[in-house]
Amino acid sequence: MSADHRRLGRELDIFDSDPLIGAGLPFWLPAGAAARYEVETYLHELERRAGYRHVYSPVLGKRQMYELSGHWSHFAGDMFAPMAMGDEQLVLRPSMCPHHALIFKARQRSYRDLPLRIAELGPMYRAERSGVLGGLARVRSISLNDGHTFCAPEQIGQEVGDVLALMARAHAALGLRVSSYRLSLRGAKGEYAGDDASWDRAARLLRDALDRAGADYEEAADEAAFYGPKIDVQIVDPAGRESTLSTVQIDFHQPERFDLSYRDASGGPARPVMVHRSLVGSMERLFAALLEVHDGAFPVWYSPVQLSVLPVGTGQGPAAGAVVREAVGAGLRAEADHEGSLGARIRDSVRRRIPYAAVTGPREAAAGLVALRQRDGRQLPAMPVDAGRRADPAGGGRPPVTGTGMSQPREVPSTGRRHTHFGM
Amino acid sequence: MSADHRRLGRELDIFDSDPLIGAGLPFWLPAGAAARYEVETYLHELERRAGYRHVYSPVLGKRQMYELSGHWSHFAGDMFAPMAMGDEQLVLRPSMCPHHALIFKARQRSYRDLPLRIAELGPMYRAERSGVLGGLARVRSISLNDGHTFCAPEQIGQEVGDVLALMARAHAALGLRVSSYRLSLRGAKGEYAGDDASWDRAARLLRDALDRAGADYEEAADEAAFYGPKIDVQIVDPAGRESTLSTVQIDFHQPERFDLSYRDASGGPARPVMVHRSLVGSMERLFAALLEVHDGAFPVWYSPVQLSVLPVGTGQGPAAGAVVREAVGAGLRAEADHEGSLGARIRDSVRRRIPYAAVTGPREAAAGLVALRQRDGRQLPAMPVDAGRRADPAGGGRPPVTGTGMSQPREVPSTGRRHTHFGM
Repeated sequence: MSADHRRLGRELDIFDSDPLIGAGLPFWLPAGAAARYEVETYLHELERRAGYRHVYSPVLGKRQMYELSGHWSHFAGDMFAPMAMGDEQLVLRPSMCPHHALIFKARQRSYRDLPLRIAELGPMYRAERSGVLGGLARVRSISLNDGHTFCAPEQIGQEVGDVLALMARAHAALGLRVSSYRLSLRGAKGEYAGDDASWDRAARLLRDALDRAGADYEEAADEAAFYGPKIDVQIVDPAGRESTLSTVQIDFHQPERFDLSYRDASGGPARPVMVHRSLVGSMERLFAALLEVHDGAFPVWYSPVQLSVLPVGTGQGPAAGAVVREAVGAGLRAEADHEGSLGARIRDSVRRRIPYAAVTGPREAAAGLVALRQRDGRQLPAMPVDAGRRADPAGGGRPPVTGTGMSQPREVPSTGRRHTHFGM
Repeated sequence: MSADHRRLGRELDIFDSDPLIGAGLPFWLPAGAAARYEVETYLHELERRAGYRHVYSPVLGKRQMYELSGHWSHFAGDMFAPMAMGDEQLVLRPSMCPHHALIFKARQRSYRDLPLRIAELGPMYRAERSGVLGGLARVRSISLNDGHTFCAPEQIGQEVGDVLALMARAHAALGLRVSSYRLSLRGAKGEYAGDDASWDRAARLLRDALDRAGADYEEAADEAAFYGPKIDVQIVDPAGRESTLSTVQIDFHQPERFDLSYRDASGGPARPVMVHRSLVGSMERLFAALLEVHDGAFPVWYSPVQLSVLPVGTGQGPAAGAVVREAVGAGLRAEADHEGSLGARIRDSVRRRIPYAAVTGPREAAAGLVALRQRDGRQLPAMPVDAGRRADPAGGGRPPVTGTGMSQPREVPSTGRRHTHFGM
């Protein structure tokens, strides 16, 4: 049976929903939230080191802002109804670009500031019809890993190439496999903003970036954003099903609508270009994909619980508690399980896809050892409880399981943060 | 002149607003967002270690949910207008409690699970009148550090005491001083839900917790939440102005409205109590207070930029770049400033309240040293650029300025995360 993220999400306590809250508005239970928080923290640090500057912007904006951006005329069918506030109308945002454009505009900018990369993992809203909603894959409240680079026209090619490289790193860290790239262009069906010359130029720049990255790609008509063409990155699950998470888009339109400018090297005003990008899409679609790709067995670094400590008998309760405290102190997500037979607890730990179980019997308790069992059934040699800490005199978060061959996000820069600091 | 957070927020690039987005809907610029992210990360870890389980819940809910919770009849004047969606009405939430109540209800709970502490740093919305809006202190979009403990009635006292202790730790870490506690009770003016016995019992439990904490407090009528009495914690700025950030509240009402239950030790159903709490209030009001209390000079650990590297001449550009890379690699927020005279750059670094400036001349560049100047003008002895890393062979994020007497969040457990891992 092929993995279904809705079933896995329920069984693994990743997310759920309630009719009183509404359709397409799932909430994340503690296990799902722990995994998502780890991924969000990783993305924040990855972006920070790539020169992105994070912001927080509100999810509301005036109707006039969306009239100016073009969303009102091109995208209103997907937007929530405006709310009256005094004699104004406020709208739940359908995207973050207008807010980021206004953040660019909030200060005088110089060519020396470019490329200026603004990032935010923020919510946005789509008035999807009830019929299409399902689990995390199609929702009305979307938490998007978003970013906008404001750059000079001659910087676009490099920027798009850098984005494709950063996406590849994020995919590798999350254990995702890219199946193909799609160049999404205008078509006869949609309504698009902007002039032909800009569309042609943007498409050429995207083709160049794909060629330089050595990426195979297909071109698709009528899949562009209303303001410009884009590259969509397709990932594939073990059953061969494809989904689109990541995208990079070129936009000459909104900088003009918002009259954005910077001072060029000669001191005169110049118009920046916006490069929109999402490294891994929304947290909702990302986790729908991750659940199915990994059949719920996430890589260790973002597993909701990383270590389950199982005392063989009640006499090992205190020793089990000590192992949990040591692991939590080292920055791991660990818990003890005392209820039921040892066999049932091991099965439950495997069912919950917990990467490591530490079975703690009289011998381990007396000697201060842990004997780790991996979720695939493999057994690791017993080691001292504080093995991780002793290998890391700074006590900086290495788990007691250092050096056991745990998988590690590849190509992630060392950050000093918990998720990369594990040595996993 | 007393500090005004609106002036400081503009001068230090903490936040700004735009008429196209709307009144009471500020955005956080990169400097402000960096400080806020650091504080959010700290709070998340503080709560995690105190046994809170984080969730993410949507900011929308059906009108019926707020009719059931009592918000609709007691609080509708502060809520945004409902939005039509098919034949339903969705409302921007004015608080997180109904969502968290439904998350409690999403799974079968046992007395063994209690106290169950659910936390979320999430947005909520208030339809404030335009006239009262100002800076970050009064906004329409609120990012609240929120939490709800579901517990047995006999656990309330201990829980409230633990919350007061956790607040004290957060205040100390942020450099806030508590001036007084207020016990906010029902009064003749407001409309309150629930019966007299529950109100009296809740007030008695809060008084007991304040007495056990040895806190001086005043009682205030008509300041309670509509569902129960609360303790409000007042902080004070150097000019003597008070504001309320933190609160803890007892609620017998909503568990009944949402028909929450758990299985008690005898296997029968029992009703939990909800303890609402915010350790530091909303990020908006918190930073309004922090800006004024510190006159913009935040403690090092959440300063937007922690280290500014100033090459004396163009010849030291590469050496300055190396210091920045070393510092960023160690997890610090650092940047180089090349533009203008050295004197102007030092003044700018002080104006921006950057805690440390590393003036890099020919001598320092040649010897691989940094000479740090603190924002108060004090000078530290020159030390090797990689002093921090060498003291920390794990390379775990210690800055090159370890051991220089930088201020440290007090009483914060060692987490392995960047903000506490600095050695600052």
